[in-house]
Amino acid sequence: MLDAVETPALVLDRAKVERNCARLRDRLAAMGVTSRPHLKTAKSLEVARIAQGGKPGPITVSTLKEAEWFFERGFDDILYAVGITPSKLQRAAALERAGCRLGVILDGVQAARALRDFVQAECVRLPALIEIDTDDHRAGVRPGAAGLLEIGAILGNTLDGVMTHAGNSYTSKSVSEIRGWATREREGVVHAASRLRSAGHEARVVSVGSTPTALFGDSFEGVTEVRAGVYMFFDLVMAGLGVCETGDIALSVLATVIGHQAEKGWVITDGGWMALSRDRGTAAQAVDQGYGVVCDASGHPVDDLIVADANQEHGVVASRSGRLLDPVQFPVGTLLRILPNHACATGAQHGAYHVVAGSPVVEARWERFNGW
Amino acid sequence: MLDAVETPALVLDRAKVERNCARLRDRLAAMGVTSRPHLKTAKSLEVARIAQGGKPGPITVSTLKEAEWFFERGFDDILYAVGITPSKLQRAAALERAGCRLGVILDGVQAARALRDFVQAECVRLPALIEIDTDDHRAGVRPGAAGLLEIGAILGNTLDGVMTHAGNSYTSKSVSEIRGWATREREGVVHAASRLRSAGHEARVVSVGSTPTALFGDSFEGVTEVRAGVYMFFDLVMAGLGVCETGDIALSVLATVIGHQAEKGWVITDGGWMALSRDRGTAAQAVDQGYGVVCDASGHPVDDLIVADANQEHGVVASRSGRLLDPVQFPVGTLLRILPNHACATGAQHGAYHVVAGSPVVEARWERFNGW
Repeated sequence: MLDAVETPALVLDRAKVERNCARLRDRLAAMGVTSRPHLKTAKSLEVARIAQGGKPGPITVSTLKEAEWFFERGFDDILYAVGITPSKLQRAAALERAGCRLGVILDGVQAARALRDFVQAECVRLPALIEIDTDDHRAGVRPGAAGLLEIGAILGNTLDGVMTHAGNSYTSKSVSEIRGWATREREGVVHAASRLRSAGHEARVVSVGSTPTALFGDSFEGVTEVRAGVYMFFDLVMAGLGVCETGDIALSVLATVIGHQAEKGWVITDGGWMALSRDRGTAAQAVDQGYGVVCDASGHPVDDLIVADANQEHGVVASRSGRLLDPVQFPVGTLLRILPNHACATGAQHGAYHVVAGSPVVEARWERFNGW
Repeated sequence: MLDAVETPALVLDRAKVERNCARLRDRLAAMGVTSRPHLKTAKSLEVARIAQGGKPGPITVSTLKEAEWFFERGFDDILYAVGITPSKLQRAAALERAGCRLGVILDGVQAARALRDFVQAECVRLPALIEIDTDDHRAGVRPGAAGLLEIGAILGNTLDGVMTHAGNSYTSKSVSEIRGWATREREGVVHAASRLRSAGHEARVVSVGSTPTALFGDSFEGVTEVRAGVYMFFDLVMAGLGVCETGDIALSVLATVIGHQAEKGWVITDGGWMALSRDRGTAAQAVDQGYGVVCDASGHPVDDLIVADANQEHGVVASRSGRLLDPVQFPVGTLLRILPNHACATGAQHGAYHVVAGSPVVEARWERFNGW
């Protein structure tokens, strides 16, 4: 039972994870495109298996440590989806030599030359995707840029295709805006692939991905694979976008009431930002959820309570409407569960999931890992 | 050398830690008050030893795991400075039975009754400090509140004194404002102790603490010990408050340039929020430092560069003034060091310190830990 778990602790609802994973998996299967789940959120073997419906398959990772960890556990088709630097090439090559198909990404001529020289000198195969900037938010070369063909020419037969991530879809105000980002993401990366092919380069892989665009894109024509990660758990940022319901959020932080500030109507818990993370992703949305939505031990939201403020090991629970909370309703020792703003950030504050399925019964403890 | 360290990674300048620790230690020694350093920031044996000038002494912790970890390494006078809950009492008692003097804190009658009943039933000694609210920001009972004496009466001979933390000193706009918080902190907790003593209760310990008030308080009259933590490392929030200079900040995150967005004048690194934390503590200060101040590999700030935005494993380096950065100046593979907004949050994203002393030579690797 959750009341035997020392707080603060991370709780994962397996039934919700299964439902969330089936939702995207079924959608992509119906649209005839491969799913390459991103494991940067979950960093868990059990969750990876659920995401792939029990069958092994291709995955995406955000660090070489993730690549090594999942390769050791049987995953051998991995895309490392952060721009590769020369200093990381030996570590990547060690994975390839051990039998892993490790794809890498890059978006500039310097990185392309370093990769080409390395694979030639070391006789390794590290197939590369060129990162395409389709949303003007971070990395990548523009679909129409001259540099795209220059990078393709440098890479030669190390080029495997193109990839993009419409991270700006997270700022959408409506589902139709998300669909707009999905179209822009797909059209941009397909255009880049087509330019490379016209210039005589191979571009076998056309990879897109973000949870909002994966769940709402109208078409994946020309796309070969979709990467998404946070859809496995969902979070308040995704709920604020309309991508999921609050009830779909599988991740929460278990906390205990440690005191009250009766005059202010606050309840103080041991779930501070160390347990919740400093992420305030809903601050820019229509409804600011503070450091998270407060639920009872069964995972049901309690009125309009949020974690209004947080220190390292203290959470301040308050009503969003300003109503004063009655200490009698939340005695010292009461267990609460906090739904997080951002599952990737909150998960990273913990070393394991306490697994439930719709009730406070803990059915398993699943390891997760951090670091690089 | 730092160029052999895989990035992102945490770097700690030992020489700066020693200087910062000596500054507070010498100040408190001159003022005749005991230092009980808070190890929630460092979570490191080597740093704890520096903080205490090489001699063993009393410490403060924010979790029972910290208490256990430091007790196993020879620290046996520990204050657990987060309100104790009934569910944590057995774990606390195990430490006491193993020979640790473990102090606990609380601020309400429910917690006081639970503690009193537990120590009587289990025949353990867990001396308790009553938390006093001197700054109106979080937990604690007001110095003049009737409840203070009620809690004292419940605790009986388990009462050991009073403690407070002027967390609101972090919002100061000037050193004189910090001094004001220090006065308010000291007067409030001394008043609370005096009320308890007048009512016939023992209040041996009068404990105050926060880095700003510890470094700028004019007097510690009536105070028996001072707790502070972030002063060992300092950070941009402390520099913004005027508590330290940027050059005093001992902690940084080593990152590698992975690409550029030349049109926007951005440099992209592998130091994202997973390595820096989501803390944006300078956002509310006069100078918003984004996700951190960018330094070269030797730790010297580069012009007015900050990490203007961050994703999980990507940092976007830009000029605060909007000047476009020249990719030629920051080729792929360039090492940078990022000074953090908040050392407690940034440290927690890592498992070890790579220790330097004013140069890029790595002289040691010091373990740090996380979790509860």
